[in-house]
Amino acid sequence: MKIGTVIGNVWATRKEDNLRGLKFLVVQPELLNKSNNDSSFIAVDRIGAGIGDKVMVTQGSAAAHMASDTPLPIDAIIIGIIDSVDIERGGENG
Amino acid sequence: MKIGTVIGNVWATRKEDNLRGLKFLVVQPELLNKSNNDSSFIAVDRIGAGIGDKVMVTQGSAAAHMASDTPLPIDAIIIGIIDSVDIERGGENG
Amino acid sequence: MKIGTVIGNVWATRKEDNLRGLKFLVVQPELLNKSNNDSSFIAVDRIGAGIGDKVMVTQGSAAAHMASDTPLPIDAIIIGIIDSVDIERGGENG
Amino acid sequence: MKIGTVIGNVWATRKEDNLRGLKFLVVQPELLNKSNNDSSFIAVDRIGAGIGDKVMVTQGSAAAHMASDTPLPIDAIIIGIIDSVDIERGGENG
Amino acid sequence: MKIGTVIGNVWATRKEDNLRGLKFLVVQPELLNKSNNDSSFIAVDRIGAGIGDKVMVTQGSAAAHMASDTPLPIDAIIIGIIDSVDIERGGENG
Repeated sequence: MKIGTVIGNVWATRKEDNLRGLKFLVVQPELLNKSNNDSSFIAVDRIGAGIGDKVMVTQGSAAAHMASDTPLPIDAIIIGIIDSVDIERGGENG
Repeated sequence: MKIGTVIGNVWATRKEDNLRGLKFLVVQPELLNKSNNDSSFIAVDRIGAGIGDKVMVTQGSAAAHMASDTPLPIDAIIIGIIDSVDIERGGENG
Repeated sequence: MKIGTVIGNVWATRKEDNLRGLKFLVVQPELLNKSNNDSSFIAVDRIGAGIGDKVMVTQGSAAAHMASDTPLPIDAIIIGIIDSVDIERGGENG
Repeated sequence: MKIGTVIGNVWATRKEDNLRGLKFLVVQPELLNKSNNDSSFIAVDRIGAGIGDKVMVTQGSAAAHMASDTPLPIDAIIIGIIDSVDIERGGENG
Repeated sequence: MKIGTVIGNVWATRKEDNLRGLKFLVVQPELLNKSNNDSSFIAVDRIGAGIGDKVMVTQGSAAAHMASDTPLPIDAIIIGIIDSVDIERGGENG
């Protein structure tokens, strides 16, 4: 999973039918080492994340497993709001 | 999910049997930060996107979950036509 | 999906049992913008693609959904032979 | 699978419901050749890995297959604690 | 699928329960064009590949479909030992 910060909202009236009611947020990945320069992306949120929250995001089709029933066509979901990250080796930030 | 703009169409008469009738569009990813330089790619569209529309695209095998029945061999689908993106931190465009 | 050109064949006598009879081709991705420099890769073909054909390729585990029964351990499949690509914005080739 | 070293812990009180009780660790990928500069990421651990352990990590939605029942929305899991890696060609470390 | 060469073995006594008995090899991807500089990675082998063999590898969750029953948490599997690759256009090696 990646760590990122919520930086925005996405509004899309016309959507695939089974995505109505979902909240879409813009997430900026955080640097965990110096070579990280990933772009922002859009993630679904169901746990009440807001602007400025540091979050843990699952990417890829694993994000489709957010409900117990049929998988959805989404590729990123916020799975946790991070309280703290303890790094015990190296000079990474996070 | 990524944000992109629809810039073209793909025509392919000979296809895998279960893909007949699907619309294939060329999507150019939008920059969400400065290091983004992803290539254009092809995405399936079922919600009526057209040239110039800003869209939200799901990539990977999650795109196969577009129908409630058997998954299809596609790896990108347009899931929404974007009305607006509000970024509240940093200097990204979008 | 990516666009590429079929440039070669792969022969492998010893294979996973459920892959016998499949055709494996080498595909060179086409440039859709200037920063594209992806490597060639191997894709399964079931629609009769040949050397020099411009094809549309699905990558990732979505490629495993080529048959209606059990998924196969493959990560790329040629899903269409392209007749034409119409780009209506920007200077991409394709 | 990738090789990495466990370098930290992640604490997140608010999480997707089906992820409660899982342990989340920060993993720094090890160099297997000179061009490797991947960022650290978060992986689920169920086999008792700790800070400093060299581990084998499965990424992508295959990580969701950690339990025999329903898949979980996670994209990285530590699947083994490495005793040794024997490289018999080239100058890679590992 | 990627082409690579088997260059080593990985030993891990403590593993996820459903992975006992599997063989884990280190695979170095082969160059299929000049810009390729991928890192080595670990792949499961069930077809008897050994050090020095040129192999065809499936990556991502499609690798989990190696058995007809429940998927396993692995993200790379050797699916064939390559006899030859015939490239008929361009200057790639392989």
